[in-house]
Amino acid sequence: MGTDKYDVLQDLMRRRGFAWGSFEIYGGARGFYDYGPLGASIKRKIEGKIREAFRREGFFELETPDITPEKVFIASGHVEKFVDPMVECTKCGARFRADHVVEEALGIDAEGLSAGHLTRLIREHDIRCPECGGELGEVWYFNLMFETGIGPYGDQKGYLRPETAQGIFVNFRRLNAFARNRLPFGVFQIGKAYRNEISPRQGMLRLREFTQAEAEIFFNPAETEHPHFDEVREEVLRLYPIENQLKDLGEIEVTAEEAVRRGYLLNTFFAYYMVMVKRVLLDIGIPEEAIRFRQQLPEERAHYSKDTWDGEVKSERFGWVECVGIAYRGDYDLSRHMRMSGADLTVMIHYDEPKVVRRLEVGLNMKRVGPRLKKDAKRVAELIRGWDEEKLRGMLEILERDGKITIEGYELEKEDFIIKEVEEKVAGEKVVPHVLEPSFGVDRPFYLLLENSLVMEEDRTYLKIKKDMAPIEVAVLPLVAKEPLKSIAYDVFRTLQKAGFIAVYDEKDTVGRRYMRYDEIGTPYCVTVDNQTPEDGKVTVRDRDTREQIRVAIEELPGKLRELIFG
Amino acid sequence: MGTDKYDVLQDLMRRRGFAWGSFEIYGGARGFYDYGPLGASIKRKIEGKIREAFRREGFFELETPDITPEKVFIASGHVEKFVDPMVECTKCGARFRADHVVEEALGIDAEGLSAGHLTRLIREHDIRCPECGGELGEVWYFNLMFETGIGPYGDQKGYLRPETAQGIFVNFRRLNAFARNRLPFGVFQIGKAYRNEISPRQGMLRLREFTQAEAEIFFNPAETEHPHFDEVREEVLRLYPIENQLKDLGEIEVTAEEAVRRGYLLNTFFAYYMVMVKRVLLDIGIPEEAIRFRQQLPEERAHYSKDTWDGEVKSERFGWVECVGIAYRGDYDLSRHMRMSGADLTVMIHYDEPKVVRRLEVGLNMKRVGPRLKKDAKRVAELIRGWDEEKLRGMLEILERDGKITIEGYELEKEDFIIKEVEEKVAGEKVVPHVLEPSFGVDRPFYLLLENSLVMEEDRTYLKIKKDMAPIEVAVLPLVAKEPLKSIAYDVFRTLQKAGFIAVYDEKDTVGRRYMRYDEIGTPYCVTVDNQTPEDGKVTVRDRDTREQIRVAIEELPGKLRELIFG
Repeated sequence: MGTDKYDVLQDLMRRRGFAWGSFEIYGGARGFYDYGPLGASIKRKIEGKIREAFRREGFFELETPDITPEKVFIASGHVEKFVDPMVECTKCGARFRADHVVEEALGIDAEGLSAGHLTRLIREHDIRCPECGGELGEVWYFNLMFETGIGPYGDQKGYLRPETAQGIFVNFRRLNAFARNRLPFGVFQIGKAYRNEISPRQGMLRLREFTQAEAEIFFNPAETEHPHFDEVREEVLRLYPIENQLKDLGEIEVTAEEAVRRGYLLNTFFAYYMVMVKRVLLDIGIPEEAIRFRQQLPEERAHYSKDTWDGEVKSERFGWVECVGIAYRGDYDLSRHMRMSGADLTVMIHYDEPKVVRRLEVGLNMKRVGPRLKKDAKRVAELIRGWDEEKLRGMLEILERDGKITIEGYELEKEDFIIKEVEEKVAGEKVVPHVLEPSFGVDRPFYLLLENSLVMEEDRTYLKIKKDMAPIEVAVLPLVAKEPLKSIAYDVFRTLQKAGFIAVYDEKDTVGRRYMRYDEIGTPYCVTVDNQTPEDGKVTVRDRDTREQIRVAIEELPGKLRELIFG
Repeated sequence: MGTDKYDVLQDLMRRRGFAWGSFEIYGGARGFYDYGPLGASIKRKIEGKIREAFRREGFFELETPDITPEKVFIASGHVEKFVDPMVECTKCGARFRADHVVEEALGIDAEGLSAGHLTRLIREHDIRCPECGGELGEVWYFNLMFETGIGPYGDQKGYLRPETAQGIFVNFRRLNAFARNRLPFGVFQIGKAYRNEISPRQGMLRLREFTQAEAEIFFNPAETEHPHFDEVREEVLRLYPIENQLKDLGEIEVTAEEAVRRGYLLNTFFAYYMVMVKRVLLDIGIPEEAIRFRQQLPEERAHYSKDTWDGEVKSERFGWVECVGIAYRGDYDLSRHMRMSGADLTVMIHYDEPKVVRRLEVGLNMKRVGPRLKKDAKRVAELIRGWDEEKLRGMLEILERDGKITIEGYELEKEDFIIKEVEEKVAGEKVVPHVLEPSFGVDRPFYLLLENSLVMEEDRTYLKIKKDMAPIEVAVLPLVAKEPLKSIAYDVFRTLQKAGFIAVYDEKDTVGRRYMRYDEIGTPYCVTVDNQTPEDGKVTVRDRDTREQIRVAIEELPGKLRELIFG
């Protein structure tokens, strides 16, 4: 029997209580996963590490609803653009993602192709229904948001958010007030997001309901130097830029500083948060060699993004998998919400000292034009008052060149105007902040952490998970299930539990089988109470990876384990 | 101006960044709330305290999806019974909760009245539309679950879960395997739940999207003694049983032990978890005098519950508010899911030693009946073989009484049967576990914690929140915004932040105004760096409640603050 790592892991996840497909007893529901006791423990730790990292950067946490009124997603562009191309079989009625069908039939990369293009390819190559071989219809766009009705009338349309980010954008005014009008600042949210995938595949990698940890960093587009860039400039990043993808040049390794200097990354802001993302992935326990950053091709980018780099993690089964997106969203979202809601989502940027600005002031010379324009004079004067600097300068140019200009049917000369150039002191300017978004998935790193941690040796299969990420941190075992070993072991277990460790007590089976049991789920240390313990007050601490054992005095156990597990 | 605490608190929550109605810039959406930076900080702490308490009890955490296929809620009874009575105005079309309309018009308690009863009351008293005075139609039932479609066909109906509990029940088989078939065990889930309330009111108290922390404790109905009841038997509980409510006798205070002995509580299981709930509320910072347990009246109980006690917290504005439900769900959910899914959700309970059971074995005496029944003999024999003990004993009774019995049209006598009574050793029996469910809301305790913490004194309004629950734990302030005080203060701030405190640095405004600013949001300690600090290396630590100040050496600050805040 071939030992496919993926199958071994799937079995392990289900059997030992990490994760499994949801609603099993009702035949399952594709795209939904449950986290069992061990899985939930790890998932909480991943979320904890990301939250810690965000807090360390001084970001504020926010929590907004999953159910969101339609208006928000009309503004954000999701109602129009958060779609996948779909195609239906005219014979059996089955529906598919059109680009996937084309990809599978032709072996080309069809992501980002238009519905028309996909239809053409299907016709040209006579691509058939993968289920029944029937003829496929026209490709159309299917919106991926789950829809629901809010309130008792059922007519107030709402969607389950497809990303947590919009809850942050619509609250920008309050958040800016909390930050006391000072850019840059960051806000994050950890919560659920939902996408009604047409055909979920790849197990936990493409879920219809998943957890995101997104941070939005609002900055002044005129100030893109990160204040703490110095702290990370030497850090090496493995990059896979667009050019290298197109020319098949492979990845490059550069320091954060070089990445900016050589133009791979837009600015030090981008580079700084890319390093942050890398450090979080390392902190979770993803090995450095399994991390890279790939720049999204233009056709892959979301509608709001000007440039996006994916933090990818290597999977034995699935190749490089996107786990984090670092998107430059520009002022797209705030501008759209400003327009749609009428709210002012700008920030007043005060200059260090007031700037002197020259400004045109143009009015009609009423004495000259009054008699000619009569009651229209006032209307034309008001019209001109409404013009902005650019328009006024344009008018002046025409007057200088032609000596006259026609406004509202009246031909006017330079002398018909009173033109002044004034100087003004301006304290600052209103800016729509730009946004950089490091957005973590939580479910994918969960799966990839397990995959990257699974070790299959000849005599055992075990989870060499980063020690502080283990779902159960310590197992306390009496060598045999007899007194006084049982009572001593149980007391040790309770002491460790009270000291904050995720601990279990287990007396069943031989000690060898118990070691295997806890190795399999990644428990870094087993503590064994043996026949010597009642005499010398010491227990055996066995290391999961080396299988080495040391003897430790019971009263020193919590401190020793803390040092071993949390470093 | 009257100083209504509710209004002061609402203003404080919005202005300082605790919580506010969602989607403000789009005109808001009733029943949805956002948690701002300070609110999210407190909410995470509440969830943390509940999680800690559940883990201390040895419960396992689980995480299941919000979107749930319809089948699950048909089985759970929610499709049929999770409804509120609704009535529509025939003139203006406005819709209302029928029981609320009746309550407001007649001043009676209308909860739990049937649709027919409510219609009758509306007709008899000519109750009119509260909006336009028009005639109201018939009362009907409105299902409170948010509906959505799963998958690309839009025909796979799903609901957003109205409680997190069902995700636990449908996974019982896996959870029982994880617990290695040993009752009792507990499983909890902290997550979102959704109820499409007809008319949300009372701010954060009746949300359409809210957070629950539910534990389901599965136990053998034949063993209802909690193994650790000894640890809590002396704890005093304030109870408000049904009888006392009906006879207006007020609450009683009894120990957990008395509560069981005097029959208020079903068993020590119930009492044990009621004490746990009380301790969690205290740990969150709800004052003891604001906690009571009220037994739900039969008409208030959910369809699955045999007995429910609400952990209520007192609100100045809203009276006693349900924050936790402790429901005895019996075997309702597991039995329904067994029936609906066909899965075996029983637990094999092994007897201490095998029981000897007497059992009937009944067959046909083929020699006698064969010639008469011919080819039907085999069929009748198989039929009888399928009968259970009860049916066999019933048959025997009839034979003893009447001397004969008619089966499938054939009249048979006692001699036509071979009847044996055998003894069997049985190792155990299959049991459908019963369930006790302590279910915390998180949003309500959040609001009630703030309300119970708000202190309005003559010269200041401040949040006397339990110190370890403060959203910002320490503010570091240079006395004036000058060097070297600024640098020292900033270093102190960074040190505290790295030591795990939620800290801020603030140099704006006079130190007096800053104290007020942090008192208002409940920051328990302000650390001030003054002109003496550069000389003696000490800072001033000011207590929020007493306003007393002590001087502490900088290197002792983390330890001292940890002791002051976390005890």
